[in-house]
Amino acid sequence: MSYLKVQDIGEQGLLERLQSFCPPEIIGDDGAVLTTQPEQSLVVTTDVLVDRVHFSEITTSPEDAGWRAAAANLSDLAAMGASPLGITVGLGLPGDVAVSWVERLYQGITECLQKYNTSIVGGDIVRSPVISISITAFGQVHPNRIIRRNNAAVGDAIVVTGVHGASRAGLEMLLNPSLGQILIQGDKQALIRAHQRPQPRLDVLPILWKILDFPDIPLPLSGMDSSDGLADAVLQICRASGVGAVLEYAQIPLPRAFERWLTKEQAMEYALYGGEDFELVLCLPIEPAYELVQLLGEGASIIGTITDGSQVILLYKNKEMPDQVLSLNRGFQHFKS
Amino acid sequence: MSYLKVQDIGEQGLLERLQSFCPPEIIGDDGAVLTTQPEQSLVVTTDVLVDRVHFSEITTSPEDAGWRAAAANLSDLAAMGASPLGITVGLGLPGDVAVSWVERLYQGITECLQKYNTSIVGGDIVRSPVISISITAFGQVHPNRIIRRNNAAVGDAIVVTGVHGASRAGLEMLLNPSLGQILIQGDKQALIRAHQRPQPRLDVLPILWKILDFPDIPLPLSGMDSSDGLADAVLQICRASGVGAVLEYAQIPLPRAFERWLTKEQAMEYALYGGEDFELVLCLPIEPAYELVQLLGEGASIIGTITDGSQVILLYKNKEMPDQVLSLNRGFQHFKS
Repeated sequence: MSYLKVQDIGEQGLLERLQSFCPPEIIGDDGAVLTTQPEQSLVVTTDVLVDRVHFSEITTSPEDAGWRAAAANLSDLAAMGASPLGITVGLGLPGDVAVSWVERLYQGITECLQKYNTSIVGGDIVRSPVISISITAFGQVHPNRIIRRNNAAVGDAIVVTGVHGASRAGLEMLLNPSLGQILIQGDKQALIRAHQRPQPRLDVLPILWKILDFPDIPLPLSGMDSSDGLADAVLQICRASGVGAVLEYAQIPLPRAFERWLTKEQAMEYALYGGEDFELVLCLPIEPAYELVQLLGEGASIIGTITDGSQVILLYKNKEMPDQVLSLNRGFQHFKS
Repeated sequence: MSYLKVQDIGEQGLLERLQSFCPPEIIGDDGAVLTTQPEQSLVVTTDVLVDRVHFSEITTSPEDAGWRAAAANLSDLAAMGASPLGITVGLGLPGDVAVSWVERLYQGITECLQKYNTSIVGGDIVRSPVISISITAFGQVHPNRIIRRNNAAVGDAIVVTGVHGASRAGLEMLLNPSLGQILIQGDKQALIRAHQRPQPRLDVLPILWKILDFPDIPLPLSGMDSSDGLADAVLQICRASGVGAVLEYAQIPLPRAFERWLTKEQAMEYALYGGEDFELVLCLPIEPAYELVQLLGEGASIIGTITDGSQVILLYKNKEMPDQVLSLNRGFQHFKS
């Protein structure tokens, strides 16, 4: 099949086609201009994705690659408590990539951004031997509403939004379609969807402000997203705050399909270390924590407590499985083999 | 020679080493927090550089690659009239890159940023088969001081800062060290330096505000930087503003070495199409334009006038060379062969 390649239309031709995905007023200058509200802090976050390292044709359509790239950055904004102002997209492309592939990537990016009322405000397209997608997202947040990692206090409840392990389970099923045949089609599709179209939890922010609004002082809140895994998130918060934690395994919300399908060990592996669920892990005093879980629904739960120790201990309360001290070494490291 | 590679220390190890190049307060969260001044607009700009496409070991040390990447983005901010708030750096790295190479790259980036009182505020490091550097820069500017491309008016003078063609001449000498042997060592070094350490013209902004400060209305000003060449800058401004221009070749400031060394044709080629001089091309009424040139010094000049035509005409006023209509097609296109 013959198709139009990016080298056939050049950088300028490609830029012209991609302008339809951006608001018209931002095109044509050396930079994009955005209006911020007074008394808001600016939050910036950046992610680079590389073909065959972070996504692959086997598991990810160009639309899904675009959605996931946008969602990862919006999730970082949500983790800081910030509302999105826009993103920039830097693309590295081999000359023989199909123009339609790039348009489908942008389609996925903009579908995700539109859902959260934001847009692409700038970018760069360059020739490269490998496809790479660099996204920088900007958001704004009142200085007293910034969510940091280093603010967890002894006695805080640890709240997780949504379920954990779904994205990893979906990825495994995409890599090996014979997996999960025991599952009903709807459950299987939900897990695959969790991998392909993760939802950044910007919807949690207004609920948090409702529960915790003390305009004059910073919120008694810390947290981050679980993009590198639930275990990693708890460990990072504890390390940054100089505290420990106790987690109860039975309280970690799992996808309902896990019970029929996976052993307890596999379910734990996916939920704690699977990553890319893009949920929030939040530490706050126990009363607002209960209120938050009640308002969130959909599997949100208090999974443990911040302690004055230095370890993160996972309690199984189950004779067959010993309690476990979690370690950062299990996390995904990009360069080590 | 054995040296430490990034795969030997992993992403976390590399991040720890690179933290010394960032302000301590911005480390450790999902995003960086920046304070903007009220009533300022946010300007964002992004660039991707790929090894062997945009820089090469032959002509560019890691320090120079870093400086140039930072300078290109600060130049885009200057072209919009914005003062820098910070940059993010997204790095794609093969596992066998030397850790010292990455540290030297960051050294070059931060040397440039320090000169302009700004810093790295965030980033991402990922594994990639090719080295890529994605920089997004943020700046702020009062809404009435934004410099756009689409605001050039018939009768405006066209001012260029600095000299043009120096960066391209320096690149040619790095690629072919036998070139320019007729030149004295100081002139040769100055051209090479212009390529390796270009200076974004943020210093021009306070001079512009001094001449043109009308706080209640937008400035009668348009412009962009000459990173893709002087001809490209004038053509882009004219296209965006729906106007034409007449340029006088004899008024374009050239490096003093060109006269001894290059034919008129070569000098014109480098000055108009060489690119990467990172100077500013500004269109404004004639009186403030004269004042600006007087205050700028160092080769700045009025090189022409905005007309009500649609073409950009270059006048040679010289029997041996015919007048010329400039065209965008001469510009550098990343994908076309």
